[in-house]
Amino acid sequence: MTQFDVLTVGNAIVDIISRCEDAFLEENEIIKGAMNLIGAERAEKLYSLMGPAVEASGGSAGNTAAGIANFGGRAAYFGKVADDALGGIFRHDIRAQGVHFGTSPLSTTTPTARCMIFVTPDSERSMNTYLGACVEFGPEDVDPAVVAGSKVTYFEGYLWDPPRAKDAILDCARIAHENGREVSMTLSDSFCVGRYRAEFLDLMRSGTVDIVFSNKQEALSLYETEDFDEALTKLAADCRLAAVTMSEEGAVILSGGERIAVPAYVVENVLDTTGAGDLFAAGFLYGYTNGRSLEDCGRLGCLAASIVIAQIGPRPMSSLKDAAVKAGLV
Amino acid sequence: MTQFDVLTVGNAIVDIISRCEDAFLEENEIIKGAMNLIGAERAEKLYSLMGPAVEASGGSAGNTAAGIANFGGRAAYFGKVADDALGGIFRHDIRAQGVHFGTSPLSTTTPTARCMIFVTPDSERSMNTYLGACVEFGPEDVDPAVVAGSKVTYFEGYLWDPPRAKDAILDCARIAHENGREVSMTLSDSFCVGRYRAEFLDLMRSGTVDIVFSNKQEALSLYETEDFDEALTKLAADCRLAAVTMSEEGAVILSGGERIAVPAYVVENVLDTTGAGDLFAAGFLYGYTNGRSLEDCGRLGCLAASIVIAQIGPRPMSSLKDAAVKAGLV
Repeated sequence: MTQFDVLTVGNAIVDIISRCEDAFLEENEIIKGAMNLIGAERAEKLYSLMGPAVEASGGSAGNTAAGIANFGGRAAYFGKVADDALGGIFRHDIRAQGVHFGTSPLSTTTPTARCMIFVTPDSERSMNTYLGACVEFGPEDVDPAVVAGSKVTYFEGYLWDPPRAKDAILDCARIAHENGREVSMTLSDSFCVGRYRAEFLDLMRSGTVDIVFSNKQEALSLYETEDFDEALTKLAADCRLAAVTMSEEGAVILSGGERIAVPAYVVENVLDTTGAGDLFAAGFLYGYTNGRSLEDCGRLGCLAASIVIAQIGPRPMSSLKDAAVKAGLV
Repeated sequence: MTQFDVLTVGNAIVDIISRCEDAFLEENEIIKGAMNLIGAERAEKLYSLMGPAVEASGGSAGNTAAGIANFGGRAAYFGKVADDALGGIFRHDIRAQGVHFGTSPLSTTTPTARCMIFVTPDSERSMNTYLGACVEFGPEDVDPAVVAGSKVTYFEGYLWDPPRAKDAILDCARIAHENGREVSMTLSDSFCVGRYRAEFLDLMRSGTVDIVFSNKQEALSLYETEDFDEALTKLAADCRLAAVTMSEEGAVILSGGERIAVPAYVVENVLDTTGAGDLFAAGFLYGYTNGRSLEDCGRLGCLAASIVIAQIGPRPMSSLKDAAVKAGLV
């Protein structure tokens, strides 16, 4: 018997969200649409230049866990916060959503990770992440019973940035497979793929990872091609199951030689694209671990993504379960 | 020469905002639509029961100062935060909006004030305020040069809750009047009016306050009547200028026997009424200190209120100046 549908593992981050003009990104050398890693000094500098902001718990895999729980799924999360105010906010929010979160907080002076997100007038988000306490996440934070009791263990490619998280992930994958479970990852960001291409391909080709989430840019980056069809063909060969998102063009699911196209839901007023990929994964994995067809998994993913981009902040403030019922998907 | 259009003085608070059902308010004895004062223990209890939340700088007069600056006005703010993470967020947000904020933070262990705001399905907000560092705000926090250099000094009725803020306000009013400036207050909340009715009436009747902001419920509470017309007549007699808001019915401005009705702007999708009154005051005072007619002041107030209730959080995330230009008001 499983205890959880999905365990997600990632950098535990609080988002600080503000609007800005495109010129601000250029002036401050922020790569648009990307996750830019920054140190403590640059974090302080950028915050001093940032406009009025709002704060919300984030972190890619944290958003996915919250989304799965919001659908009514059973979710758990591993991630490292500090024993400080932002860490308290992160812990509150993920637990209040019903996610099991037991990772012990860091008690040194290193603060909880934060991501300054600048949303430009086109609603695209550009992220600047100071990893803080996340750099201390390691194998000692893996609760084997939770991994063994989860149908799918899902992790962020972003975890290859901190030094010891990859060791924790390899432990998770081993435990999961020993218990007949599945392992999934998101490629996270095209620049992240650029940093760890060989390792990500090895995770897939070695069978460490069974299910891969990617967007179009990440897939192109992974295979260093501009030919999307070629990237899809190679991705299908490299993993058992993959879901590739394409913004307003929806998603395509790759399974055993089959390609299943899923249309996007139309969003009239896109406010902030933060969390779109994370929530797609949430919808898909909720469906997948609850016995839905791959097409319906894709639809649940597109639905959740459409809801999060119509609001500011990375976790839907309304019920995904209700939305799925309304859309006739559950 | 004035340095600022408006100085606002209030409890410096970070909002923690979540949605809930009406039953939650009843179960937890939260008075709907009101500002409920709570202690540290109840704050911890309520937070443990609260759903996933987002954080945003708030505080009634802080929101008003931010709104005035967002319109392009010159604003200053007095209010007490602690030297902690939430205090840093408050300070960042108000300064990033262009508001002059120099009050020194409290360095004891008392934390920055927070307000847990529960937004019910009807979009009404019910507030639960733990005053924290605000209880230490006093006359020593008044910068006389800022008061003397501001056309209007505006404060919250809520400042009668902490012990020594009223002394600071009386100092501010004296300095303002000695320098030929005006003093304004908001009645804040109908229950707050209930707590300090005699003192608020005395502030008005003694000429300590020149301009009063009130909503319908507060005006009715002030004069302990259910007859709104009677309340308006009495309010007009008790102060030189008053602006009374009536939600979707707009506002009425009382000036020297005259009543000027101002219609509300239609809002299709009200998300969260937090900040409506604060932003009405911002628009009104921006217009007032920039030589606009009383009717236009009212329209600017209604415009700002209409923008803040169409979003989650108490400070508009878009440009009020642009909105005023678009509406033909500046």
